[in-house]
Amino acid sequence: MDCYFLMFDTIEVHAPMNKSSFEKRARALRQQLLQSQFSLQGSRHPVIIVLAGLDGSGKGVLVHRLNEWMDPSGIDTNTYWEHSDEEESRPYFWRYWQKLPPRGRIGIFLGSWYTQATQKRLLSNIVDAEFEHTCRKIRNFERHLSDDGAVVIKIWLHVSEATQQRQLEEKAPRKQQIPRVTEHPYELQGKYNQTLAIYEELIEKTQTEQCPWHIVNGEDRYHREINAGEIIRDAINSRLNNIAQLTQVPGLPEPHDFLASINLDESLQKDEYKRELRKYQSRLQDLAWIAYNQKKSLVAVFEGWDGAGKGSAIRRVTGAIDPRLYKLVQIAAPSDEEHARQYSWRFWRQLQRDGRATLFDRSWYGRVMVERVEQFAKEEEWKRAYGEINDFEQELSEHGSVVVKFWIHISKEEQLARFKDREEEAHKRHKITDEDWRNREKWPAYEKAVNQMIEQTDTEEAPWVLVAGNNKYYARIRILKALCKSLEKALS
Amino acid sequence: MDCYFLMFDTIEVHAPMNKSSFEKRARALRQQLLQSQFSLQGSRHPVIIVLAGLDGSGKGVLVHRLNEWMDPSGIDTNTYWEHSDEEESRPYFWRYWQKLPPRGRIGIFLGSWYTQATQKRLLSNIVDAEFEHTCRKIRNFERHLSDDGAVVIKIWLHVSEATQQRQLEEKAPRKQQIPRVTEHPYELQGKYNQTLAIYEELIEKTQTEQCPWHIVNGEDRYHREINAGEIIRDAINSRLNNIAQLTQVPGLPEPHDFLASINLDESLQKDEYKRELRKYQSRLQDLAWIAYNQKKSLVAVFEGWDGAGKGSAIRRVTGAIDPRLYKLVQIAAPSDEEHARQYSWRFWRQLQRDGRATLFDRSWYGRVMVERVEQFAKEEEWKRAYGEINDFEQELSEHGSVVVKFWIHISKEEQLARFKDREEEAHKRHKITDEDWRNREKWPAYEKAVNQMIEQTDTEEAPWVLVAGNNKYYARIRILKALCKSLEKALS
Repeated sequence: MDCYFLMFDTIEVHAPMNKSSFEKRARALRQQLLQSQFSLQGSRHPVIIVLAGLDGSGKGVLVHRLNEWMDPSGIDTNTYWEHSDEEESRPYFWRYWQKLPPRGRIGIFLGSWYTQATQKRLLSNIVDAEFEHTCRKIRNFERHLSDDGAVVIKIWLHVSEATQQRQLEEKAPRKQQIPRVTEHPYELQGKYNQTLAIYEELIEKTQTEQCPWHIVNGEDRYHREINAGEIIRDAINSRLNNIAQLTQVPGLPEPHDFLASINLDESLQKDEYKRELRKYQSRLQDLAWIAYNQKKSLVAVFEGWDGAGKGSAIRRVTGAIDPRLYKLVQIAAPSDEEHARQYSWRFWRQLQRDGRATLFDRSWYGRVMVERVEQFAKEEEWKRAYGEINDFEQELSEHGSVVVKFWIHISKEEQLARFKDREEEAHKRHKITDEDWRNREKWPAYEKAVNQMIEQTDTEEAPWVLVAGNNKYYARIRILKALCKSLEKALS
Repeated sequence: MDCYFLMFDTIEVHAPMNKSSFEKRARALRQQLLQSQFSLQGSRHPVIIVLAGLDGSGKGVLVHRLNEWMDPSGIDTNTYWEHSDEEESRPYFWRYWQKLPPRGRIGIFLGSWYTQATQKRLLSNIVDAEFEHTCRKIRNFERHLSDDGAVVIKIWLHVSEATQQRQLEEKAPRKQQIPRVTEHPYELQGKYNQTLAIYEELIEKTQTEQCPWHIVNGEDRYHREINAGEIIRDAINSRLNNIAQLTQVPGLPEPHDFLASINLDESLQKDEYKRELRKYQSRLQDLAWIAYNQKKSLVAVFEGWDGAGKGSAIRRVTGAIDPRLYKLVQIAAPSDEEHARQYSWRFWRQLQRDGRATLFDRSWYGRVMVERVEQFAKEEEWKRAYGEINDFEQELSEHGSVVVKFWIHISKEEQLARFKDREEEAHKRHKITDEDWRNREKWPAYEKAVNQMIEQTDTEEAPWVLVAGNNKYYARIRILKALCKSLEKALS
């Protein structure tokens, strides 16, 4: 099988480094690494280090060394081996999003988003197309992080089968003494050749200019540590010294006018509304429990013009679902913990477990609406966001979540009437602010942004439901119906 | 058994409220609730609402109504019924700490820290002394939150057995249709009399002036909702209108001089150090795996003077433990999410699962050291902190965690020598700042604070280990030995 190891065959072979030359190089390197680490602080760059390699390749020792060389208070080491039920009952990448370092800090990942793909491939549970798909998802995940400023450093520690064997045998007495020590390796153990072949394939397919792999010869400990340290130093410095290179996003065509095609005359009479409300709330209540039993989760997004009636529509939804089965998430300004991470982080962290509904009152679409129009986001950022959003929603849907997105539409005249009404009604006054009036002045810009958003993110797995909102009764029933329909389709 | 219901017997009985008078009162109340909620924003007060009551008492409907009356974007509803393994493998209160609302927001708890005590008591798994102990812990938990500014509102919705029966029967058809709907009630179901008797006892024992229970007659829906709404309104307003009443903390006696009794002449030769290091690191490595297998967790705190060698001592500990089995937590300035919650929150959130070690480089003791000396915390706050800390550590220890706290002591002369050394060595220069020099000037104030800290928080379950640190070799071995000893004692 050796013929597969094209990449690993080209690994540079060194004569073993002696202790004194190691110490000399280490002293200089340590100083440089510290310098790089301090330059990071206050920058917009988090550092993500993936340490991969077969068992016995020295990953654990390297982690220890990096913590010794750099300031450990700026480093988080994340290990993945046993998975909790909180992790298992959410989309696969959730566990990694949870642990992403904030800007200015370093996160080391022992066991990473590469592990599952390798394991599945080794156990032949994954066909070529699926493997390809997984690799594409990994590339996208890393690119999104890198676009946002992350320095993504992926290191493969390579050891020969003989070296691996020797290192594992050195640990063997302990293994016997302490059962289970190596029952859950970070990576795969045994099956040296097969695993290596899979990793070679995986590395080739996830080798990108933006987030490159570095192959380190792991035979000699001194060489290995110096080499890895230099790779990290260089990656950080080159990112800090270059003007941020954002991925070029191509221009977008003028969008179709989806909003114009919504028939705002749709309406319902009060008695019919009451009948329908009872019917669909009751159905939704049942469906929520069936979804719970079948461990299907629902992710619903509520967007719409100010005054479109999002809040009152959401209350008709939450009123139908047992409070144990849903979480309503209100999106406002990000906290500093959220601000310090990639844009999607604060939505990922809110996802509820399988069998529950996560309802978003405003959402990640803020990026391509208010942040675009008000220029809170740079042009590259909001243009990039379409792809990030589609990947996020695809991840949800592939995991088995039902994703439904509502845009509640009203006419400009209807909005004016509602704003005035809010100003007059005491218990509604809090709902209207100067900002609402300012936003209203930018109606055409928002209109264009919404149409573009629909055009770019209306997918089969995560469709937009455009809701005529001039008549509140109609809008609420439309939403309840659509939720029921989507759930019914997904539930067996 | 009716004789037990002394408290519930005194519940006011109302004639049913008619719809029009409900609507009139609701309109006014809604406006007042909104006003209270807006006054909250930007204040230092979070609101914690515990909704308790038997199944069928209308808790779910009340949650819905509160969200309708107030601005739902300022309210989080937290339900507790099924527990995840992340929750089960940490101290009981962890799950509630996780969900505490930040200042200015309202958290509604359906299912709360009262549930487990009731369930255990009903199943006779809990003797009187344990029940008493649980009640004391609940009182303390709520008092700590309230001392910090929280408005704690506890509402018991009371219904007669007949009403409960009727409400449950109304749901019965749905139950048959959707299996498992009521398999996991928020509270207890069936056994009306026994459960009520236990709740009466529980309520009496957790009835405090600071965090009182409110008994609401739940027979009539209109009355129930108006009554609960008024209780919430009044509780928020009275807290906002009063000058914060901090719990009076009694004066503290002049502490014993523990630091003076540490023999700073203790030392180890390099070769002995190397031998001992190998021995105890190897033992610690094994113990960490045994602890993992026995699901015992370790919480270790590292404190000491600037320059005492905390960092290098911690590296000798982390170097011994498999990275999968520990998390090193570096305590620096709090994030805004942390700042918005009670002081302990940011430590609770870091606790690792059973079988893992959580190592704190600096800790909650900052409150009674740097925050005291630098006057970042008010006098009441740091004085109160001793009790909060002891409760926190007791909770850890009762859960089965091994808690060990190290104070690494050096002489003032030794500190000076190390500061100078740091300024001279390139790779150590980042470790010395102006702040270190400023802190040094306050040596006597710190000395007193440390002695008082030891006096107030040295408990059998969470002892302080005072480490002579002038000789680094000695200090490191002392720490490794102490960790091994504590783990060995705790592991069967």
